[in-house]
Amino acid sequence: MTHEIGIGFLGMGNVGEKVVATLLERSDAFREQTGATLTLRRVAVRDPGRARGIDLPAGVLTGDAGEVLDDASIDIVVEVIGGDGAAGEYVRRALAGGKHVVSANKELVAKAGPELFDLARASDAALRFEASVGGGIPVISPLLRDLPANRVVAIRAIINGTTNFILTNMAQRGESFDDALTQAQELGYAEPDPTNDVDGYDAAFKIAIMAGLAFGAYVPPEGVATEGIRSLAPQDFQYARELGYVIKLLAIAERHDDGVLARVHPALLPESEPLARVDGVQNAAQIQGDLAGTLTFQGAGAGAAPTTSAVLADVLDIARSLAAGARPHWDPGPWRNGETLGLGALETRYYLRMTVLDQPGVLAQIARVLGEAEVSIAAVEQRETDEERGTAELALMTHRARELSVTGAIETLRGLGEVIEVNAMLRVEGTT
Amino acid sequence: MTHEIGIGFLGMGNVGEKVVATLLERSDAFREQTGATLTLRRVAVRDPGRARGIDLPAGVLTGDAGEVLDDASIDIVVEVIGGDGAAGEYVRRALAGGKHVVSANKELVAKAGPELFDLARASDAALRFEASVGGGIPVISPLLRDLPANRVVAIRAIINGTTNFILTNMAQRGESFDDALTQAQELGYAEPDPTNDVDGYDAAFKIAIMAGLAFGAYVPPEGVATEGIRSLAPQDFQYARELGYVIKLLAIAERHDDGVLARVHPALLPESEPLARVDGVQNAAQIQGDLAGTLTFQGAGAGAAPTTSAVLADVLDIARSLAAGARPHWDPGPWRNGETLGLGALETRYYLRMTVLDQPGVLAQIARVLGEAEVSIAAVEQRETDEERGTAELALMTHRARELSVTGAIETLRGLGEVIEVNAMLRVEGTT
Repeated sequence: MTHEIGIGFLGMGNVGEKVVATLLERSDAFREQTGATLTLRRVAVRDPGRARGIDLPAGVLTGDAGEVLDDASIDIVVEVIGGDGAAGEYVRRALAGGKHVVSANKELVAKAGPELFDLARASDAALRFEASVGGGIPVISPLLRDLPANRVVAIRAIINGTTNFILTNMAQRGESFDDALTQAQELGYAEPDPTNDVDGYDAAFKIAIMAGLAFGAYVPPEGVATEGIRSLAPQDFQYARELGYVIKLLAIAERHDDGVLARVHPALLPESEPLARVDGVQNAAQIQGDLAGTLTFQGAGAGAAPTTSAVLADVLDIARSLAAGARPHWDPGPWRNGETLGLGALETRYYLRMTVLDQPGVLAQIARVLGEAEVSIAAVEQRETDEERGTAELALMTHRARELSVTGAIETLRGLGEVIEVNAMLRVEGTT
Repeated sequence: MTHEIGIGFLGMGNVGEKVVATLLERSDAFREQTGATLTLRRVAVRDPGRARGIDLPAGVLTGDAGEVLDDASIDIVVEVIGGDGAAGEYVRRALAGGKHVVSANKELVAKAGPELFDLARASDAALRFEASVGGGIPVISPLLRDLPANRVVAIRAIINGTTNFILTNMAQRGESFDDALTQAQELGYAEPDPTNDVDGYDAAFKIAIMAGLAFGAYVPPEGVATEGIRSLAPQDFQYARELGYVIKLLAIAERHDDGVLARVHPALLPESEPLARVDGVQNAAQIQGDLAGTLTFQGAGAGAAPTTSAVLADVLDIARSLAAGARPHWDPGPWRNGETLGLGALETRYYLRMTVLDQPGVLAQIARVLGEAEVSIAAVEQRETDEERGTAELALMTHRARELSVTGAIETLRGLGEVIEVNAMLRVEGTT
C-alpha cells in the first residue's frame, strides 16, 4: 500500500500555480520516486473567486487559511505568499501544529529563522526553504548536505536577478541607471517600486540565510551591511572596464576570527573571475570550503519553473522520509546569535572616482592625503571633464587598505579646496 | 546518550588518509551535526607495515579486509581502493552483510551499479558515491535530491582534470599533445600510463553514472561512445580560436525519444559558453532540467581534500539518518536497462580538417561531395602548407548535419585524388 501524503498551499501566484500544476501532472512519477501518493488537499488564497491559470479539482480552493492549517489530512504546507506578515503567522501556526513547511519566503526565513527552527524542532516538523535563495539553483542544499565536513570560509554571490540585469545593461550599453531600470520594469524584471531589489534588501535577506547556514550563527538582515546600485554612473563602468574589471552587486559573507562579516554592495570584480561573466538575470553563488575549495553554482535565480524545481525538491524529500516512516526533519542546528561585524572590519582594495580642479599639484595633494591614511594608490586615470570650469575627473584604484582608513581619507579629501566631490567609492573584490 | 557509529575503511591512499584525518580532527563538530559519535574502528590496507602520512590509533590498521567486513561494530564502510577487482568483491560483501557503503569508485559503480543497488536494497543498506564523480563538486546529490521534480534533458560536463589540463596547455601555449602530456605527468596530473584519462575511459565511467541517475536507465560504460584526445593537433586549436571556439573533452548524455545517447569526445565549444572557460584541472557539469533550466556546477574535480569533502558528505548523511533511527537508504530507483544509442543518432555541427592538393577546383569538389551527403558548409579556412609538394590545409565547419552523413562524406572525400587526408573530424557543441 502506498502512503498518502496531503499537501496544502498558502497562496497561489505564478510560482504556486506552476508548483500545483507540476504536482498534478507528474503524480505518477513522484509516486514512483517517493513511494507515496501526493494528494493536493487545499489551496488558500485571498480571493478564491479570481480567475486562475490552472484548473483546480473542485473544492480545493478556499479563502480561509485555517482550512489548510487545521486540516488534519494535510501533512505538508507549501507557503508561497511571501513577506513576513500573514505568511509569518501562518507558517508559525503550521509548524506549531506539527505540519511540515516548505517555504519560498526569504524575508521570513531571514528575519525569523531562529524562532521558526525552534518551533519546528519542538513539534518535530521540518522547515525547508531551498526556493528562498537562488531560484532553481541549489544553494541551501549544498550548505546543509554537500559541504557538512567543511569549514566554510566565505560565500560570494550574485543573487538578485533584477540588479544584475540592470548592471549588465549599464555595462554593455553604457545606459544610465534610470534608463536601465525603466527597461527592466518594462520587461517585468523589476517591480514598479524597485526598492527591494535595487537597494539591496532582497540580496541581504538571501545572504543572511546563507551565512546562517554556513557559519551556524544567525545573521539578522539588519546585520548585513547593505548598499544598492542607484548611485552608479555610466563612467564607473567605463573606468572599471579600462582597469580590467566589471561591476556587480555582490552578496558576501566571510568568517573572521571575531565574527561574521556579511555585506551587499556593488563591487569591482576582475574580468577573469567566473562571477564576472554571470550576466542578465542569471544568478551564481560561490561557496568556499576548506576541503572542497571554491565551488560555483550558476543558473536561473528566479522564475516560476526554476522556483517550482526548488519547492518540489523539498516537498519530495519530505515525502520520501515520511513514506519510509522516518522523521523528515532537517535541522540546520541551533543558530547561535553570532557576532555580526560591520564594514569597519573590512580590508580590501577600493575604487574612487572624484571631480577635482584641473590644475598642477592636485594629484600630489590627493596622494598625500591617502598616504597619510595609509592608503596607497595602485592605478590612476585622469580625464578632463569641463574645460570652462577647469575641472577634471580622477578615477583611482588603491592597494589593499582598511575601510576605515579609506572612509577617513575621503572625509579629508572632501575638505580640500581642490577636490570638488568624491563621487564614488566602490570596493574591489577578487585577486589582491 | 549519543549514538555511536563505527566506521571502517577499505584502502588508504592519499584520499583515505585525508578522510581519516578529517574524521579524527573534526569528531566534535561531526557529533554536534549528526547526533552521533563516529568511531574509526578498522582500516584495511594491502601493506599494514608501510609508513603512512597519518598516525592511526593503535590496533586500527589491518592487512585483512575481512576484519572490516566481518566486524559487527562497523556500520559504515568507506571504500577508497578503486577499480573493480578486490574493491568490487569487498563492496558486494559489505552490502550483502547489511553495511552501508560510501565509495569513491567510479569504475565499480559505472560497471556494476544495478547489481550493487539491488544488493543494497535487499539488505536495507545504503550505497553512496558522491565522490565517484567530480571530486568535491556536488553532482550526484543534485541529480538525486535537488532536481527530482525535473525531467532531465541533458548533461554536459568537463569531468576529467588530466585531459582538461592538457587541452588548456595545448590551447594557451600551442603545445603538441605529447609535450602537454609529458608536462602533466611531471606535475603529477597524469599517470605514467595515461590511457584511462587521455582515451576518455575515466570520463566515460563518470557520465555513465550521471546518465543512469538522470534518466533512470542504466548506461553501461561500453554504451558510452568514447574518443580520447590523442589525435588533436596544435593547428586544430588555432583554427578553433579563429572560428571563435575552444576545444574541450566533453562528456555528454542526452535523452532522445528512443533512448539515451551518451558520449565522450573532444568537441568545439563557443568561447561564450560557461564551460569554455573551465580551464586547467577544474571540472564543471551542466545539468539541464525542464523546470530548473541549465544549472552549472564548477570546482576542483580531484584532489585529496575535495574528494574528502564528498566522501564525508555521504558518511555524515548516513550517520544523521542512523542517529535519528531512520533507514539511510537513498535509493536511486531501479535502473531499468535503457536503450543506449550510438553516435549514429547524433545530429550536430562538425569541424573537419584535411590536407588537399593546392589547385583550382578542389574546394568545389569537396563542397559537392558534402552537398550530395546533405552536409552544408558554414565556414572555410584554407592555408598553404607545403609549397614544394603543392598541398594546402583546409579547415571547415558545417551546418547541422547527421553524423552518418558526415562520416559517409568523409569516406567519399578520402577516395578523391585531390584529398590527401582527412586529418580531423570534431563535433561542435553549443548554440547551433
